[in-house]
Amino acid sequence: MPELRLNLVTREWVIISTKRAIRPDDFRGSNNGLPLAEFVESCPFCPGNEEKTPPESLRINDDTRGGKNSWRVRVIPNKFSALTTEGEKERCHEGTRRRVSGVGRHEVIIETPFHNLNPATLDIPRLAELLRIYRERFLDAYNDHRVEHVIIFRNHGEQAGTSLEHPHSQLIATPVVPLQFRDRVQAAMHYFDDTGHCLLCEIVKAELKDKKRIILETEDFITFIPYAAVGPYQTWIFPKRHSATFASITDFESEALATHLKAILSKLYFGLGDPDYNYVIRTSRPKDLTNEYCHWYVSIHPRLSKAAGFELGTGMHINSSRPEVDAEFLRSVKI
Amino acid sequence: MPELRLNLVTREWVIISTKRAIRPDDFRGSNNGLPLAEFVESCPFCPGNEEKTPPESLRINDDTRGGKNSWRVRVIPNKFSALTTEGEKERCHEGTRRRVSGVGRHEVIIETPFHNLNPATLDIPRLAELLRIYRERFLDAYNDHRVEHVIIFRNHGEQAGTSLEHPHSQLIATPVVPLQFRDRVQAAMHYFDDTGHCLLCEIVKAELKDKKRIILETEDFITFIPYAAVGPYQTWIFPKRHSATFASITDFESEALATHLKAILSKLYFGLGDPDYNYVIRTSRPKDLTNEYCHWYVSIHPRLSKAAGFELGTGMHINSSRPEVDAEFLRSVKI
Repeated sequence: MPELRLNLVTREWVIISTKRAIRPDDFRGSNNGLPLAEFVESCPFCPGNEEKTPPESLRINDDTRGGKNSWRVRVIPNKFSALTTEGEKERCHEGTRRRVSGVGRHEVIIETPFHNLNPATLDIPRLAELLRIYRERFLDAYNDHRVEHVIIFRNHGEQAGTSLEHPHSQLIATPVVPLQFRDRVQAAMHYFDDTGHCLLCEIVKAELKDKKRIILETEDFITFIPYAAVGPYQTWIFPKRHSATFASITDFESEALATHLKAILSKLYFGLGDPDYNYVIRTSRPKDLTNEYCHWYVSIHPRLSKAAGFELGTGMHINSSRPEVDAEFLRSVKI
Repeated sequence: MPELRLNLVTREWVIISTKRAIRPDDFRGSNNGLPLAEFVESCPFCPGNEEKTPPESLRINDDTRGGKNSWRVRVIPNKFSALTTEGEKERCHEGTRRRVSGVGRHEVIIETPFHNLNPATLDIPRLAELLRIYRERFLDAYNDHRVEHVIIFRNHGEQAGTSLEHPHSQLIATPVVPLQFRDRVQAAMHYFDDTGHCLLCEIVKAELKDKKRIILETEDFITFIPYAAVGPYQTWIFPKRHSATFASITDFESEALATHLKAILSKLYFGLGDPDYNYVIRTSRPKDLTNEYCHWYVSIHPRLSKAAGFELGTGMHINSSRPEVDAEFLRSVKI
C-alpha cells in the first residue's frame, strides 16, 4: 500500500508509491556514462580560454605547474547573469504589484581545469578546497548590503538544467528572501517552540537510532536518505554539531564534508550510471550564527523523474522508491 | 536591468531577466509539430482498446455514432495509481516521523476518442462538456471522507511529464492538504484581513485597468499573464465573479471558460509550435463555497525552461520573458 510521509523540515507531504518503481539499472545520466575528454578546445571553462569568460573574481593558482593558465579553481561572474551587480536596490509598491530592482550577484565557480572531472572523481583535498571557496564566496556575497539571501548550488547534466559540461558550481545572491526559506525557518521555529530542541538535531538522533536510511556516518557528519525523500535517492548531509549557518564550517569540517560529498556522489556516479543531479546548500545567513533552531545542510537531488501537473499544482511529489530501499542500495555500492 | 516581482497569490519572488530570452520561433514541443494519427492501434486510450484500461468510473456515450465503442469521454482509474481507493486512512506519529496511509483517488479522464485532438483543437461544446465532467469528478472525489484535497491537471507532452499521447487529464485526491495550498490560503487571508477585499478580485480589477497583460476578456472570465509569471507565457484564467471553489461553476460558465481555455491553448499551439505544457485548476473544497478570500482559477504553464539548482534551492524562478511582451505576442496570434 502506498503511504504519505510528511517532511518536517520542508512541511511538504510526499507520496511513496512504488507501483512505477524503476530499478537502479534503468537510470542513466544525460552524459550516458560516456568518457569525456580532459580538455575541450571550444569549452570556455577549459584552460587557455580564460579570455572567453568575464574577468575573474577569484583565482587559486596551481603552483605545482607553470604558465599563466595554471589554476586549480576560478570564480567568475556568470556571463548570462540573472542579476546585475550595479545599481541601487529600489522597492516599488503599487496596488497589487511589488517589485525590487534586480541587483545581486550570480557567480560561476569553475571547480577544476580538467573538463572530465567532477566532485565524484575529484580528490578529497581538492573538494575540501572547493568547499572552503564556497564558504569564502558565501561570506563575501553577504557583505553586500543589498543582498538578503545567498544560495550555492551545482547542476550536473542536462536534466539538471546545465548545458555546460565543464565542472562548475554557482552562487546566486538575491535582494529578497524566498518564501521557501521563510517556510522552513518557520517550521524549525515552531518545532523549537513546541519541544525546546532544534528539529534537525532531533532528526540526526532519530536517524542514528533507526539506522535504516543512513549511507555514511562519521564523527562530524551524517549522510542519509530523508524519511520523506521527494524522489529516488534524494540525499541529505547534515553536520552533527548544531550550526545555523554554513559560514561557520571550519577547515577541518570542510575536509570531513568533502569525504561525505565525494562518497555520496561517487555512489550515485558508479551505482546509478552518472545520473543528472543538483545539489544545494541550505543555510541561514552568516549573521544568524547563534540561531538555535536553524541548521544548515546539503541536499542532493538526482533528477530521475519529471515534475508534472500534480507536482506543479500541489508542491507535493510522488517518490517511486522507498527511502529505506534506496539507502540499502547506496550502502552496498562500493567506491 | 533585471527586476524581481512578487507574486502576491503565491508569495513567490520571480527574477525577470531577459538576458537569455528566447524568441517564439525557438520554441517547439516534444511532438515537434508533427501531425498525429486519428487512431493508433497500440494506444490503450483509443476506441476498441477499452479492455486494456481498468473498468470505467464514468462514460459519456456518443449517441450520434453506433457500436459499443462509441463514446465521447471516459473516466477510468489510473492503471499506475499513486494512491489506493481501498482501506482506511490511518495516521501515525512517531518522534520526527509522520505518515498517513496512501488512500485517495487517481483518475484519468480520456478527453476524446480521437488520438490527434487536444483542448486546443477540440470544439467548444466538447471542451465545455469536459469541464463539466471535471466539476462532477471533483465533487464526487470530495464525497470520500478520507479525501482532504483534490487537484485536476493536464500534462501535455514529454517535458510536461506524460508519455501517453492520447489526450487525457488527471484527477488526484489526497488524504492530506499540501503546504503549497496552505501558503496560498494564508496569503489570501492576510490580504483580506489587511484590506477587506479578495486578493484575486483586486488583481482582476488591476489587470483590467492596466490592460498590458490581458490576452482575452469576456463578461465572465479574464485570461492574462501574471505580473510575476514564473516562466515564459505562463497564463492565468480567473473567473471575474468572486468564487472560492470550482464546484460552483455553472453550465453557462463552463462554456465561457471553454472559450478562454481553447483560446489560450490555441494561441500557444499555433503561435509557439505546440509547446509542452501543464494546466492545473487551483481551487478550494466544495464546502468552502462561501469563503470570502479564496478564489479559484486555472493556471497554464508552458514547459519552456528547466528548473535547476537555483529553482530547487529557493523555490524562486528566473523568467527570461517580460510578461507584458509575452501578452502582446499572444494577443497578436490569430486563431
